[in-house]
Amino acid sequence: MNRFPFSAIVAQDEMKQALLLAAVDPAIGGVMVFGDRGTGKSTAARALAAILPPITAVEGCRFGCAPVDAGTCPDPCTSKKTAKRAVPFVDLPLGATEDRVIGALDLERALRSGEKRFEPGLLAKAHRGFLYIDEINLLEDHLVDLLLDVAASGENLVEREGLSVRHKAKFVLIGSGNPEEGELRPQLLDRFGLSVEVRTPQSLDSRVEIMRRCAAHERDAAAFCEEWAPADAKIVRKIARGRTRLPAVETPDEVLYDASRLCMACRADGLRGELTLMRAARAQAALEGAATVQRKHVIAVAPMALRHRLRRDVLDETGSTTRIERAVTEVFG
Amino acid sequence: MNRFPFSAIVAQDEMKQALLLAAVDPAIGGVMVFGDRGTGKSTAARALAAILPPITAVEGCRFGCAPVDAGTCPDPCTSKKTAKRAVPFVDLPLGATEDRVIGALDLERALRSGEKRFEPGLLAKAHRGFLYIDEINLLEDHLVDLLLDVAASGENLVEREGLSVRHKAKFVLIGSGNPEEGELRPQLLDRFGLSVEVRTPQSLDSRVEIMRRCAAHERDAAAFCEEWAPADAKIVRKIARGRTRLPAVETPDEVLYDASRLCMACRADGLRGELTLMRAARAQAALEGAATVQRKHVIAVAPMALRHRLRRDVLDETGSTTRIERAVTEVFG
Amino acid sequence: MNRFPFSAIVAQDEMKQALLLAAVDPAIGGVMVFGDRGTGKSTAARALAAILPPITAVEGCRFGCAPVDAGTCPDPCTSKKTAKRAVPFVDLPLGATEDRVIGALDLERALRSGEKRFEPGLLAKAHRGFLYIDEINLLEDHLVDLLLDVAASGENLVEREGLSVRHKAKFVLIGSGNPEEGELRPQLLDRFGLSVEVRTPQSLDSRVEIMRRCAAHERDAAAFCEEWAPADAKIVRKIARGRTRLPAVETPDEVLYDASRLCMACRADGLRGELTLMRAARAQAALEGAATVQRKHVIAVAPMALRHRLRRDVLDETGSTTRIERAVTEVFG
Amino acid sequence: MNRFPFSAIVAQDEMKQALLLAAVDPAIGGVMVFGDRGTGKSTAARALAAILPPITAVEGCRFGCAPVDAGTCPDPCTSKKTAKRAVPFVDLPLGATEDRVIGALDLERALRSGEKRFEPGLLAKAHRGFLYIDEINLLEDHLVDLLLDVAASGENLVEREGLSVRHKAKFVLIGSGNPEEGELRPQLLDRFGLSVEVRTPQSLDSRVEIMRRCAAHERDAAAFCEEWAPADAKIVRKIARGRTRLPAVETPDEVLYDASRLCMACRADGLRGELTLMRAARAQAALEGAATVQRKHVIAVAPMALRHRLRRDVLDETGSTTRIERAVTEVFG
Amino acid sequence: MNRFPFSAIVAQDEMKQALLLAAVDPAIGGVMVFGDRGTGKSTAARALAAILPPITAVEGCRFGCAPVDAGTCPDPCTSKKTAKRAVPFVDLPLGATEDRVIGALDLERALRSGEKRFEPGLLAKAHRGFLYIDEINLLEDHLVDLLLDVAASGENLVEREGLSVRHKAKFVLIGSGNPEEGELRPQLLDRFGLSVEVRTPQSLDSRVEIMRRCAAHERDAAAFCEEWAPADAKIVRKIARGRTRLPAVETPDEVLYDASRLCMACRADGLRGELTLMRAARAQAALEGAATVQRKHVIAVAPMALRHRLRRDVLDETGSTTRIERAVTEVFG
Amino acid sequence: MNRFPFSAIVAQDEMKQALLLAAVDPAIGGVMVFGDRGTGKSTAARALAAILPPITAVEGCRFGCAPVDAGTCPDPCTSKKTAKRAVPFVDLPLGATEDRVIGALDLERALRSGEKRFEPGLLAKAHRGFLYIDEINLLEDHLVDLLLDVAASGENLVEREGLSVRHKAKFVLIGSGNPEEGELRPQLLDRFGLSVEVRTPQSLDSRVEIMRRCAAHERDAAAFCEEWAPADAKIVRKIARGRTRLPAVETPDEVLYDASRLCMACRADGLRGELTLMRAARAQAALEGAATVQRKHVIAVAPMALRHRLRRDVLDETGSTTRIERAVTEVFG
Repeated sequence: MNRFPFSAIVAQDEMKQALLLAAVDPAIGGVMVFGDRGTGKSTAARALAAILPPITAVEGCRFGCAPVDAGTCPDPCTSKKTAKRAVPFVDLPLGATEDRVIGALDLERALRSGEKRFEPGLLAKAHRGFLYIDEINLLEDHLVDLLLDVAASGENLVEREGLSVRHKAKFVLIGSGNPEEGELRPQLLDRFGLSVEVRTPQSLDSRVEIMRRCAAHERDAAAFCEEWAPADAKIVRKIARGRTRLPAVETPDEVLYDASRLCMACRADGLRGELTLMRAARAQAALEGAATVQRKHVIAVAPMALRHRLRRDVLDETGSTTRIERAVTEVFG
Repeated sequence: MNRFPFSAIVAQDEMKQALLLAAVDPAIGGVMVFGDRGTGKSTAARALAAILPPITAVEGCRFGCAPVDAGTCPDPCTSKKTAKRAVPFVDLPLGATEDRVIGALDLERALRSGEKRFEPGLLAKAHRGFLYIDEINLLEDHLVDLLLDVAASGENLVEREGLSVRHKAKFVLIGSGNPEEGELRPQLLDRFGLSVEVRTPQSLDSRVEIMRRCAAHERDAAAFCEEWAPADAKIVRKIARGRTRLPAVETPDEVLYDASRLCMACRADGLRGELTLMRAARAQAALEGAATVQRKHVIAVAPMALRHRLRRDVLDETGSTTRIERAVTEVFG
Repeated sequence: MNRFPFSAIVAQDEMKQALLLAAVDPAIGGVMVFGDRGTGKSTAARALAAILPPITAVEGCRFGCAPVDAGTCPDPCTSKKTAKRAVPFVDLPLGATEDRVIGALDLERALRSGEKRFEPGLLAKAHRGFLYIDEINLLEDHLVDLLLDVAASGENLVEREGLSVRHKAKFVLIGSGNPEEGELRPQLLDRFGLSVEVRTPQSLDSRVEIMRRCAAHERDAAAFCEEWAPADAKIVRKIARGRTRLPAVETPDEVLYDASRLCMACRADGLRGELTLMRAARAQAALEGAATVQRKHVIAVAPMALRHRLRRDVLDETGSTTRIERAVTEVFG
Repeated sequence: MNRFPFSAIVAQDEMKQALLLAAVDPAIGGVMVFGDRGTGKSTAARALAAILPPITAVEGCRFGCAPVDAGTCPDPCTSKKTAKRAVPFVDLPLGATEDRVIGALDLERALRSGEKRFEPGLLAKAHRGFLYIDEINLLEDHLVDLLLDVAASGENLVEREGLSVRHKAKFVLIGSGNPEEGELRPQLLDRFGLSVEVRTPQSLDSRVEIMRRCAAHERDAAAFCEEWAPADAKIVRKIARGRTRLPAVETPDEVLYDASRLCMACRADGLRGELTLMRAARAQAALEGAATVQRKHVIAVAPMALRHRLRRDVLDETGSTTRIERAVTEVFG
Repeated sequence: MNRFPFSAIVAQDEMKQALLLAAVDPAIGGVMVFGDRGTGKSTAARALAAILPPITAVEGCRFGCAPVDAGTCPDPCTSKKTAKRAVPFVDLPLGATEDRVIGALDLERALRSGEKRFEPGLLAKAHRGFLYIDEINLLEDHLVDLLLDVAASGENLVEREGLSVRHKAKFVLIGSGNPEEGELRPQLLDRFGLSVEVRTPQSLDSRVEIMRRCAAHERDAAAFCEEWAPADAKIVRKIARGRTRLPAVETPDEVLYDASRLCMACRADGLRGELTLMRAARAQAALEGAATVQRKHVIAVAPMALRHRLRRDVLDETGSTTRIERAVTEVFG
Repeated sequence: MNRFPFSAIVAQDEMKQALLLAAVDPAIGGVMVFGDRGTGKSTAARALAAILPPITAVEGCRFGCAPVDAGTCPDPCTSKKTAKRAVPFVDLPLGATEDRVIGALDLERALRSGEKRFEPGLLAKAHRGFLYIDEINLLEDHLVDLLLDVAASGENLVEREGLSVRHKAKFVLIGSGNPEEGELRPQLLDRFGLSVEVRTPQSLDSRVEIMRRCAAHERDAAAFCEEWAPADAKIVRKIARGRTRLPAVETPDEVLYDASRLCMACRADGLRGELTLMRAARAQAALEGAATVQRKHVIAVAPMALRHRLRRDVLDETGSTTRIERAVTEVFG
């Protein structure tokens, strides 16, 4: 397929960093990307999925069970035979029905043979990979809510039409949206782990470079991908090392206090702020190869972990990013 | 499953107390939890359900009949064989249909064999346990109303599609909602027995402690649960003792006058205020091991029993809790 | 079932009187109860139904035909075998469909055997008893209208899906509603025979007495009911005597003039005002054991017969009850 | 059934006159009755239908074909056998579906035997009788429009679901409505032949008389009807004579000019005004036994023929009836 | 059927002229009739259809194929046998579904025999005749749009339910509407070829004459029709001659310039104005028997060809007709 | 069919140029045509499709697979047998359902034989040709979005009803709309490659010439088409040469800088502006036979590539075209 290489994406550093963190620790809970159309949002997510090493799954399992999970899905899958699969990347089509998203009774089979079988939906398909939702603000609230519930619990629980089915559905949820086209409710926003802002590059050189690379990729995608393969491989290794290191990363108490003080200083609602901030800081430490989370890691991920959780302050019209930076200075001097 | 232990929940004392009271006397009629997302509302309810001792039910009964109720459900269940089951905890999925909630005709069976069988819904599943509704303010009014009707009567009565079915459905209804996201009608609110308010803790130490415990639970859930097992066991014993004592708790006339005077002083609508206040006070007495309800028990539960029943007073902008405390001082000096 | 005894209901005299009148002469046409939740509205109606003596019906008749009506319903019922049944009390469940209310084609039977059979609805079930609608203002207008049509004509006429079915459906319609939650259209209100207002008692002793009785009933319902049985039996005898006497009660012309003058004085719309006023006065006379309707009977029932029929007067903000009392003084001095 | 006798209706003369005219010449095109509930609107229409002599129809014909029309309906009916039927009086039930009104494919039969048969609707049932619509302003516009189309053309033409069926449907359409509850579009109003206004009688004696008669009818309907039978018989004879005479009634040119001048003077829209005015005047003449339409007949029916067709005049707030009377004086001096 | 004769219609000359032009050249594209109800709009269209000579069609063809088109419809029709048919006049029933209008899969046949057959709709029925839509402004926009698309292309193309069917559907579309009841979008209006305005005649003699003729037709329709038959026959001959002459009518360049200048002068949008103007002028010339289109023909049809295409001019409140007449004077002096 | 010849279209140069560019490089991504009805928008698109040389496709393939793509569609198509087909031109019918557009399960086949087969929709039909949407602003947003997604990706991916189907769907999307009838969201507009504005010609000679050509085509379409055949053939050759040359056209860096500077100067949102601008400039160069893209090519296509992407500037009411021309002058002097 020769997708656009992840490493060939010009600028957009914050978005790329957020994707790497989510790849290292999917439990961070989804990335919300704000920004104009035409800034390569979906390109980056697709590119990352494309370069990750394939996953091992029970052969023929319609729910993509990892060998250790064999037998936990509605299918009678066993770990005897396994096979490699590409990391799933599911692009939620506009107008996808709730049935198709969460799965449904296989009506045809039920009518023909009287057998009640669950037809897996897109949530099953995205298991162990990515679920990308373009223009998430156009989706109905209850569907967004449902997707966030599943993304958070890692499990899809279907209760309808006399069905009661449960299967694993762990994926990195990536939403994109344009704030000018209608906002997400704060309640929903809060449930995204990270959020990033993407803008059209304003440097002439960057813009020309983008055109050059797009043209090159279009002219001969295979050649272009080969050219960037080494850079992509380096990123894959970085993620792999990060994942391995993550469980061993220490979290000293003083960093926890740092996180809490920062959240209180910028008036983030609820506790999800500091929980995500710490998780992202740990992933950042793992990516950087550090054995212990340090204040600098907290600072590095603070904007993307807190930006969408600030309580709106009618008297303070300052942008979210600025408010976080100001709180960083305030708290850490 | 190694859920987060009930006793490991930091702060949130009022919510925990309300859950204990409802566990001692489910007839109190549901707990409404107001508060921001990310404050552990559902965690507490789940945790409580997880530690309660299993119930005994007729084996295979789809309605969870207790042995003494065998034969009262639409199934031909008998008390000959019984089995232990975990206390049910049903999480109403967003977008659950009315059919799935109250149950429906098993259409497939009706079409195949002409047999009309009732397919139990989530209300049957929640019988003798908990029914949790997150963001109840997003639910359609008629569904909320229906759930409250069933919770109050302890019985699900289905009249449709030529079905006329009735089965027990006794459960503690727990609703959570964020007042900023749309309000419940006063009529519906009034039907919740208790209501509590939950806020993000503002103490740095609490917040860091929460992060620490979350991280510990996440790192090794089994070990963490084991560590808190003795504390949880103590709570279970407290509930059990409370349940046993409850029927024998005396209610002296002067306490009834206390309750009525308090309700009149804070201008609670209708009679449900004092009826619930007394029920909760009795449960509180039972929990504390007292033989008689005393004024202090009434005072202890007054905020959660009355907070959501105050008539709105346009001239008095004081918060509900403050108004109740003021009435307590006024009446009891 | 040990329902709460009718005679044990504290205060709420007007509501109880209206229910007795409707029990003596169901043709009065339904009682609308206005008032806050938690004031025992449905308790009173249920209690009255529970103490009435059972009715005699054709055995197995799905439409509850009285022996004299055998053969008038869609079923092939005959008066050969009869059986006693409890007085029906139907509680219209929230969200009941029009199909379920008026009855519908038994689809399953039609599909299986090609036989078109009418499946009776709640209207058939309520025949010869009570139909209670809680929060009637939340019901769709067309359903309310339909219920009132049937209640008025005593007949349910179904014209749809190729069905043309007609059966008796005589019942006392009782609606309850909270005026703060949306009003009924004047057209609908006018079709209720009587209306009463119910408020939370403001006397401390009454309130404590209510709590005492509720607690006693809850503690041991059987004992409580036994204690109040004699009082309930007295009420049943009063109703029975009233029903027997009713046909013989005389209505002198001067009382008709009283009724008309009163209606004109308080500007009640249409003629339904005086027709209901006279009917209620006759029932009141029968209940009191009088042989002739007297002016005092008219005055006694005037508020509940006219309150909901007053033309709104923009310049006169006086409440309905006061306006009727004023008219009584004006007309009768 | 012992309906309330037509002649026992107190006051309401204009409504009764309009019904008689429509009975003499159904082509006049429907009567719209404006007025409050509880003024006996439907009682009068039902009463008239009840006293008319039965019609002769092809035996078993589901479309009520008159012998001369045998074979024109979708059924294979022939005039060999005929039978008497009561004059149909169809009361459009609230919530009747379009299917039930115009008729539909007999789905059950189609599924079972593959035979496409048309199931007649209420329009077929009302053929040669009356179709009464209470609160017509609550009906959806397209249904009202459809009913008026059929009433005007005397034919029901169904084009849907692969059906193309046509049958006679001649009936007097009677609509009732309360102007305070939403208006009919002028376009729809214009299509009613006549319109009358009904008010609660303001004379004490009339009101008492109404109560007396209602009570008498209720006490012993059979006796009451017998008492009024001679008066009703007289009315039936009057209608019968009017129908016989109608074709022979002459219409002199000067009366046509009278009608046109009157319509222009009161600014009635379109030509339907004078066409109906003349038709109604002819029926009036026939009822009165006159051989020729005279100016007095035109004047007698002018209010009911024109009242609902006046162009609204923003500057002239005078009521419709007054404007017509003024025009009569203006034109005829 | 003895419809009202076309030539017996009093006044309404512009409408009658427009219908004649459309009969001579159906490609002119539909006539929109504006005006009050009760002015005989549908009477004129029906009358015209009734007098046109029958068409020749393939026998039994459900799509009314002309012999030269045999084989072009979805049916396997051949030109071997032909038959005469009356000119179709289809009156779009209110509430006709899109299915019924454009045709649909014959579901019954598909279910029974698995054969997919297209059931022709009203568009097929109207082929080679008239399609009349009363109160077109009450129709949903997408249906109007669809009808205009088909009327313009002369072809009905159905793409749904797995069907892909195409058949000829050439008809004169006649819409009627009352501008007071909601307007058509300018985009839709523009697609009607001609538009005329119809008003209630204001001459006393005309009005009386109308009443006289209506009465005469009603009294004895057959006799009345016979009386007017010669006049109608003359009109038929005029149309026939016009159709024959039309292809040979010359269109000199100076008349084209006249048309363009006129359209520019009255600011008609788009080019459809002059294209229709020229078509109508040619039809007018053909009707009058002229060999060449002349300026007078352009002027004669200008109001009906352009009236509904004028750009609204906020500063110029003059009516459309006046603006066209002014433009005629301006351009042609 | 003798469609109107492309070369016989008078004026409208920008629209014709845009269509030629899209024909040379379909990846440019659709043409949006703004303008009044009656200006020949669809005529031009149809005309272009009609003259393009036929395509070669796998014989009988329902997805129109090119021989090199054989086997990539849901049908078991192979490249063994191929056939010529006309270039598809699909006119999206108003009211086409989503099913019909994207394709759906062949329900009939599924019910009859239990076989799940995908029934291709209009997107499959348009593959390798044109998809024309008249009045695109009347289409529902989600359908427009879906069409643009497919047009951009060249692939139709269906995820519903248990289907998961993917097939190529490469086509030039042409939308037409009238800005006065509701706007497209900027997000959707941005996804069209090019946009052009079409107006009614204001020159008298052009307008008369249009009438002349329309009349000539109508009189004898075959002759008219023959007359213009050489001119059309010349255009076909020009497109063919452009397509051949396109891959070899060089894009010097300075032209990329030109494009970027122009986009920044006129404040076009996102990067799609310059990417499309360069693509269109390359196609323009190919059409003109140039070996290298030059600044003049960029300037020639700038209005149609950028017009619909300008950020609205509240302070600058200048039209889009003018703002682009001003930016051209500013940047290139």
